[in-house]
Amino acid sequence: MKRAIYPGTFDPITLGHIDVAHRATRLFDEVIIAVAAASSKTPLFDLVERTALARHAVRDYPRIRVLSFDGLLVDFVREQQAHAIVRGLRAVSDFEFEIQMAAVNRRLVPEIETVFLSPTEDLGFVSSSIVRELARLHGNVATFVPKHVAIALKDRFKPT
Amino acid sequence: MKRAIYPGTFDPITLGHIDVAHRATRLFDEVIIAVAAASSKTPLFDLVERTALARHAVRDYPRIRVLSFDGLLVDFVREQQAHAIVRGLRAVSDFEFEIQMAAVNRRLVPEIETVFLSPTEDLGFVSSSIVRELARLHGNVATFVPKHVAIALKDRFKPT
Amino acid sequence: MKRAIYPGTFDPITLGHIDVAHRATRLFDEVIIAVAAASSKTPLFDLVERTALARHAVRDYPRIRVLSFDGLLVDFVREQQAHAIVRGLRAVSDFEFEIQMAAVNRRLVPEIETVFLSPTEDLGFVSSSIVRELARLHGNVATFVPKHVAIALKDRFKPT
Amino acid sequence: MKRAIYPGTFDPITLGHIDVAHRATRLFDEVIIAVAAASSKTPLFDLVERTALARHAVRDYPRIRVLSFDGLLVDFVREQQAHAIVRGLRAVSDFEFEIQMAAVNRRLVPEIETVFLSPTEDLGFVSSSIVRELARLHGNVATFVPKHVAIALKDRFKPT
Amino acid sequence: MKRAIYPGTFDPITLGHIDVAHRATRLFDEVIIAVAAASSKTPLFDLVERTALARHAVRDYPRIRVLSFDGLLVDFVREQQAHAIVRGLRAVSDFEFEIQMAAVNRRLVPEIETVFLSPTEDLGFVSSSIVRELARLHGNVATFVPKHVAIALKDRFKPT
Amino acid sequence: MKRAIYPGTFDPITLGHIDVAHRATRLFDEVIIAVAAASSKTPLFDLVERTALARHAVRDYPRIRVLSFDGLLVDFVREQQAHAIVRGLRAVSDFEFEIQMAAVNRRLVPEIETVFLSPTEDLGFVSSSIVRELARLHGNVATFVPKHVAIALKDRFKPT
Repeated sequence: MKRAIYPGTFDPITLGHIDVAHRATRLFDEVIIAVAAASSKTPLFDLVERTALARHAVRDYPRIRVLSFDGLLVDFVREQQAHAIVRGLRAVSDFEFEIQMAAVNRRLVPEIETVFLSPTEDLGFVSSSIVRELARLHGNVATFVPKHVAIALKDRFKPT
Repeated sequence: MKRAIYPGTFDPITLGHIDVAHRATRLFDEVIIAVAAASSKTPLFDLVERTALARHAVRDYPRIRVLSFDGLLVDFVREQQAHAIVRGLRAVSDFEFEIQMAAVNRRLVPEIETVFLSPTEDLGFVSSSIVRELARLHGNVATFVPKHVAIALKDRFKPT
Repeated sequence: MKRAIYPGTFDPITLGHIDVAHRATRLFDEVIIAVAAASSKTPLFDLVERTALARHAVRDYPRIRVLSFDGLLVDFVREQQAHAIVRGLRAVSDFEFEIQMAAVNRRLVPEIETVFLSPTEDLGFVSSSIVRELARLHGNVATFVPKHVAIALKDRFKPT
Repeated sequence: MKRAIYPGTFDPITLGHIDVAHRATRLFDEVIIAVAAASSKTPLFDLVERTALARHAVRDYPRIRVLSFDGLLVDFVREQQAHAIVRGLRAVSDFEFEIQMAAVNRRLVPEIETVFLSPTEDLGFVSSSIVRELARLHGNVATFVPKHVAIALKDRFKPT
Repeated sequence: MKRAIYPGTFDPITLGHIDVAHRATRLFDEVIIAVAAASSKTPLFDLVERTALARHAVRDYPRIRVLSFDGLLVDFVREQQAHAIVRGLRAVSDFEFEIQMAAVNRRLVPEIETVFLSPTEDLGFVSSSIVRELARLHGNVATFVPKHVAIALKDRFKPT
Repeated sequence: MKRAIYPGTFDPITLGHIDVAHRATRLFDEVIIAVAAASSKTPLFDLVERTALARHAVRDYPRIRVLSFDGLLVDFVREQQAHAIVRGLRAVSDFEFEIQMAAVNRRLVPEIETVFLSPTEDLGFVSSSIVRELARLHGNVATFVPKHVAIALKDRFKPT
């Protein structure tokens, strides 16, 4: 069985992320959305929230699981007996950083392959940070994230 | 009458910004420099200062006005009965983020058009953040910003 | 009255081109699709054909006209008493060449402004050269070009 | 069984191509190197030669096959009952064109997924066109292509 | 005697940095690694530590010196009677920022030339920030930095 | 004595090229403009013309020489006992190809260093191909090339 890890901060998960994970299931028997605990930036949602929002978002996809992880991605990949990392590509700036990370990961664990999926054109421009910014300004995020994520965002930014 | 909004943080306004606003008046009857209140980063100048510096900088251009705004850009555009957003393009990295924002804004309000102006080559490399960094290190910013902005920057970073 | 020139080879015109021209009419009173005669490459359709295909494609847009031109773009812009050049941006590689051409044109005629429109995400990836290549291989171009252009392409590449 | 198509002109096949095909076998049960017959440019080696050079290059990889194809890539993918297209990414300029082609192919056949592999850093900079140019100038191509390809190139450019 | 300044934060120095400095000695009689004191971000190592780590890293290169500096880079360049700034290029995003800084520096001091060296392909993907992130997660940084830097990183992130 | 080679097609030489060569003399004792004979494309000016135009353009710079070369660049560099290749960078697309060529050349001859100079902002957007296209359409090239090159271009494209 071929298993792939789709890692990220998922702060929060967007329709673009779900699309990438779903399309990865065409290539792999199982796809694990791996929500990274550690981050240099303070996330909007904490690890438990981010994991819960992601898990609810893919509850109808039997071959997609959601796990959180702490520490080095390549260690998590080995621990899960996966052998591929899946990444979505949105823009050239993404591309360069991703290529660098793939090179570092290959240097660390040569047998793990990083696989990039191209964006779906009508979701490709959505990023978690744009979604957070929109929500902060009380803009409508309904076409960018699942319903329960939109509610969580609204709640987070409600006027006090 | 065609009115365009030229939004940004303008922290502080540079000669490059003024050039973009001025050139936009060739295309539109009125151009509003819209100074964004809300930002994820702490600006060097507060909203009142940024607005005042921008207003003074374009005091001789009758068809350029300066307003500050809070909240979502597209809401402000509609409120001002404008129908175009003007952006200057400096570099490829700008370009990608701008294209994403234009796509998000079009999704939110399809009838608003985002218009990009190319940089004037001898001003194109100046950004507010480079100007701030130069001023912080007591470098000469005279060829990058209007005189009153240079004075304000000097004052902000004067040794105490 | 503000008039803009939208220049190109239009070999052939695509739905992406029509979208750019249409959106330009929100900013300008009249938009002239300017089909360039001279080219370093041999086009698939000759100037008369390219102009006819473009004209038919925008026959229902009263404020879009189609003209062909020979010689320097900036000369044509002045001749038409226009003061803006409209360009669609698709990708970073486009962007750089376009920025260079805008700089050259501004050096030649400073009062002409080049205006870039961002791509509509679901049309943004279509280029005339991809459309020609698809047609050459008898692929289905129906979602990328107007019906009469699809017929013209099919006719051009029909097995003999 | 999961089968992937790795299409290209392979004029000629390089060590970078072989590396991509080999790494793709970690993700798929079978990888078909698909040598494109039709091209807008005149290749250095004809279709029979390009296919033979590629076939010899992967003769020791039991799960990599080499086939030539004519016509539309997505038609060939369906004919081979594959469901993925594999592409190597070398640089940003590649990236953009590849993203466009992936979008076109998805529009034509939504169930086919395009998968990008990142370059191996010490082979990533080699392209067939650089190899051809080197060989044309009698440079040493030994570290960029398999031995039999180096001999074929030398033979092609030998002084007459 | 021709002297060049190779400026940066060096937080910490990597094998990629050492490679650039070493290759610069082929072009210049003396190369000064200039560790910048002032920074908008809080560095992992303080100025004294960063300078010491860099100095130890190049102790066997007689024509490379390490100095720290505070204030404007161009002032330091003049103070050291150097006339060139050396920068390594890793990626397109680097490239754009570097080009902007080179333009600003040339505007400030026209006689100082900025010189870019291309990355060595097997070190080119390593950046200080990736190294710090790896070390924070207790990953193996041995192939990216000198031994004493690896020890310093391990010490910095050891579990308390 | 440090000698650098500045290679190119120079079809024809522009003010941007001359600026790069001149600035390289600040770093090297002698700069050789190396006009490449062999090219995959048919140049507008033949090798003798391109060399003569370049030579006249730098006749007042005692430390810049112009030579033509045939064959591999690295062979010419060694033959001239130079140890550096100078390249101007204009745009991101240049950058990527140049980085690839630098990697190939380093693989062929490790001791030769490739050095990139950043563009002067008011010349940076001029390329030989844009100049040729302008001249072909009888545009004014006076601000982009030396006077004698403008005359040669005019002569080449004069109506017959």
